[in-house]
Amino acid sequence: MEFLVRIEVKLPPDMPEQQRQALVSAEAQRGRELIEIGLLKRIWRVPGRLANVSLYEAPDATAVHFAITSLALWPWITATVEALAVHPLEAPTD
Amino acid sequence: MEFLVRIEVKLPPDMPEQQRQALVSAEAQRGRELIEIGLLKRIWRVPGRLANVSLYEAPDATAVHFAITSLALWPWITATVEALAVHPLEAPTD
Amino acid sequence: MEFLVRIEVKLPPDMPEQQRQALVSAEAQRGRELIEIGLLKRIWRVPGRLANVSLYEAPDATAVHFAITSLALWPWITATVEALAVHPLEAPTD
Amino acid sequence: MEFLVRIEVKLPPDMPEQQRQALVSAEAQRGRELIEIGLLKRIWRVPGRLANVSLYEAPDATAVHFAITSLALWPWITATVEALAVHPLEAPTD
Amino acid sequence: MEFLVRIEVKLPPDMPEQQRQALVSAEAQRGRELIEIGLLKRIWRVPGRLANVSLYEAPDATAVHFAITSLALWPWITATVEALAVHPLEAPTD
Amino acid sequence: MEFLVRIEVKLPPDMPEQQRQALVSAEAQRGRELIEIGLLKRIWRVPGRLANVSLYEAPDATAVHFAITSLALWPWITATVEALAVHPLEAPTD
Amino acid sequence: MEFLVRIEVKLPPDMPEQQRQALVSAEAQRGRELIEIGLLKRIWRVPGRLANVSLYEAPDATAVHFAITSLALWPWITATVEALAVHPLEAPTD
Amino acid sequence: MEFLVRIEVKLPPDMPEQQRQALVSAEAQRGRELIEIGLLKRIWRVPGRLANVSLYEAPDATAVHFAITSLALWPWITATVEALAVHPLEAPTD
Amino acid sequence: MEFLVRIEVKLPPDMPEQQRQALVSAEAQRGRELIEIGLLKRIWRVPGRLANVSLYEAPDATAVHFAITSLALWPWITATVEALAVHPLEAPTD
Amino acid sequence: MEFLVRIEVKLPPDMPEQQRQALVSAEAQRGRELIEIGLLKRIWRVPGRLANVSLYEAPDATAVHFAITSLALWPWITATVEALAVHPLEAPTD
Repeated sequence: MEFLVRIEVKLPPDMPEQQRQALVSAEAQRGRELIEIGLLKRIWRVPGRLANVSLYEAPDATAVHFAITSLALWPWITATVEALAVHPLEAPTD
Repeated sequence: MEFLVRIEVKLPPDMPEQQRQALVSAEAQRGRELIEIGLLKRIWRVPGRLANVSLYEAPDATAVHFAITSLALWPWITATVEALAVHPLEAPTD
Repeated sequence: MEFLVRIEVKLPPDMPEQQRQALVSAEAQRGRELIEIGLLKRIWRVPGRLANVSLYEAPDATAVHFAITSLALWPWITATVEALAVHPLEAPTD
Repeated sequence: MEFLVRIEVKLPPDMPEQQRQALVSAEAQRGRELIEIGLLKRIWRVPGRLANVSLYEAPDATAVHFAITSLALWPWITATVEALAVHPLEAPTD
Repeated sequence: MEFLVRIEVKLPPDMPEQQRQALVSAEAQRGRELIEIGLLKRIWRVPGRLANVSLYEAPDATAVHFAITSLALWPWITATVEALAVHPLEAPTD
Repeated sequence: MEFLVRIEVKLPPDMPEQQRQALVSAEAQRGRELIEIGLLKRIWRVPGRLANVSLYEAPDATAVHFAITSLALWPWITATVEALAVHPLEAPTD
Repeated sequence: MEFLVRIEVKLPPDMPEQQRQALVSAEAQRGRELIEIGLLKRIWRVPGRLANVSLYEAPDATAVHFAITSLALWPWITATVEALAVHPLEAPTD
Repeated sequence: MEFLVRIEVKLPPDMPEQQRQALVSAEAQRGRELIEIGLLKRIWRVPGRLANVSLYEAPDATAVHFAITSLALWPWITATVEALAVHPLEAPTD
Repeated sequence: MEFLVRIEVKLPPDMPEQQRQALVSAEAQRGRELIEIGLLKRIWRVPGRLANVSLYEAPDATAVHFAITSLALWPWITATVEALAVHPLEAPTD
Repeated sequence: MEFLVRIEVKLPPDMPEQQRQALVSAEAQRGRELIEIGLLKRIWRVPGRLANVSLYEAPDATAVHFAITSLALWPWITATVEALAVHPLEAPTD
């Protein structure tokens, strides 16, 4: 089952540059792992924002929740998860 | 996996009473079937509105979609489906 | 009478890990008590958020208010309480 | 237990004047009955709108729902019902 | 003339308990005074929130403004004031 | 006491031109009367819309309600009425 | 460049079944063509609604506009188009 | 002075094709006139919608209002007009 | 040309009383100057809030912008400026 | 392809004046560079706010994203980017 996830990140403007880079680097590393294990299928940058839209494939919403909370930026994240149904145009028997 | 569904029904005020009653009756009948097959676990009336909140248990969002579109009032319905994750207080190993 | 409660928790990202864990632990302990006394009937995690949806059974809204304000995370909580009416499909005489 | 109810009425501008007056008259009659049986405690007009705010005293939300659906204007009504808790300033032991 | 007032209070979670209790106590004291002078006619707790809905009787909106700004919690308050008109069901000649 | 009123008018696009002009003419006539009796102090067109913002001076919200419902376009109007308090810069003793 | 498109369809409940089926069939046919020419890359059903979320790949927003207006259901559609930027996790050199 | 105008058009799906084309044609003709007299400086299509964003240069909001109400599609239009100030990057003396 | 301006002020609750009074005093002084030069024609207090609604007369939105940014409370202000058109009831030739 | 960008800036009221001026100066410098390379075609001040609306011409949303994140005020910015399609009135063959 697929989920559309929208994530906004709010970092304090006065966060030390070193901490910021460490967080962004850890975030990218965790993102690559989620891709490798097949949970994170696509991800796009929302232009002009520290935000992204992504597509997850997971057995249920609980698995998506654990994926998002495993992100390095989790304490600064606001996320919404939208369950997606199969569209007839992509249905196996269509 | 569980889903929280919110349904609003908008019937035209000038719908003939006979048609309205037939629709409401067919809606209730379909509701009882969804309960019997275990898809619809709980349902509440939103007070003051022709609306309800309900709890579905289904393998995925596609199954929920088919359940909602099978309702007799479907052409007059606006629905939102929210995926729910397991809360630690209800988790098996908690 | 039943109530649908939606709770969002906003913890400061720089809260010391020890304080955070103590709060989460006390929150879970209070949650189990509310379940045991029959006020809290169901609870779900909103995926991707430090948030939950829950179902309370209480004599009135005042009892729900006291249950929520008794939570360890109360100072960081934003809650909404929605009164639910009985749906005909669950009514005793239906 | 008390509830704050907000009702908006949308009548089609081309409704025959006779039907409109009959509806408004039946609505007022039902309103007086709800006052007499103690369900409807206060009611105010929202200025500039065919709308009102009212205060109900009822055992639960189901009773409020039946009161609202008993109104003559019910097919043209959009209502929201908000559960109220007792405030310490009005609590018996305060 | 009557006004419906909605007040939300946002206290910082790390406010010292002593200061919080002093503020809440002063707030209650001022509330009782507003009741005694007839400005504050009813007040309800919004369940689950540090918030309330209240009913004021005052000659005009300026008087309501001074009542709200006289509250001990005023610097932490967000308020909305809604003017109410007399409903025909409560009108003297109805 | 003064009130800020915002009015949106929704006329059906297929209303006969003659009816439309009669309504607009009656609306203007009633507007001039409200100005003459001192209820309507200022009125502005919201650019690009069949809408206006206006300033009423009236003893209470009930008087404003009757003024708005006396308009020829009332069945097609959606209005909001906002109570205004005196600002210190305009207060007599400031 | 990719675009996230969200489409809601509002069909009148009293549309003749034959017309509805002809429209849905033509819509699916046009959808398959958009897939074949590579404009429409993914499409999901929004559960519980006559709505979908889809992913377009197109040279610019004008091309997306023409694709959407070419749909058989276009007169009943409300659509929003969101431009997506490349996310570092999918960037060629990342 | 410049204004940013946002226009949404809602045409009934069952409008006869001949009427629709006549309206769209008259709309385009009036648009060209507004361009020629210098009121309408730029116009963009909002992708996926029968809507546009446009830039007007006019002495005041009243002139913009008359330009919009002169459009052939005016009875089906919902418009918002936003006043723009000069940005320092474009100011004459910057 | 006239503009309707809505200003909300958010002062930190722990701002020293002396600083607060100095700011409010400087704000009032600047307000009186804007009145004297004819930019600020009317101003009302939004009841229950540190907010106001005001009416400006200015040659364009740039002049309004400079007036607002000249206020002593500017760093704590959130403002919205709405362009107003002349209403036929106030038009010179009406 | 063109994009409409809306930027709000939130600077802490207690930011040292020297830092504020340095940031504003660097922002203007970067703005001039974006104009010179043809990315930033127009920019307007939203009156009464530290905000602006601007028009970008760029090959895709990724280029717009990099332009916005290159601004000196980026850590304090909230931006929205809206993709624009060509309107028939400006189309080459219209």
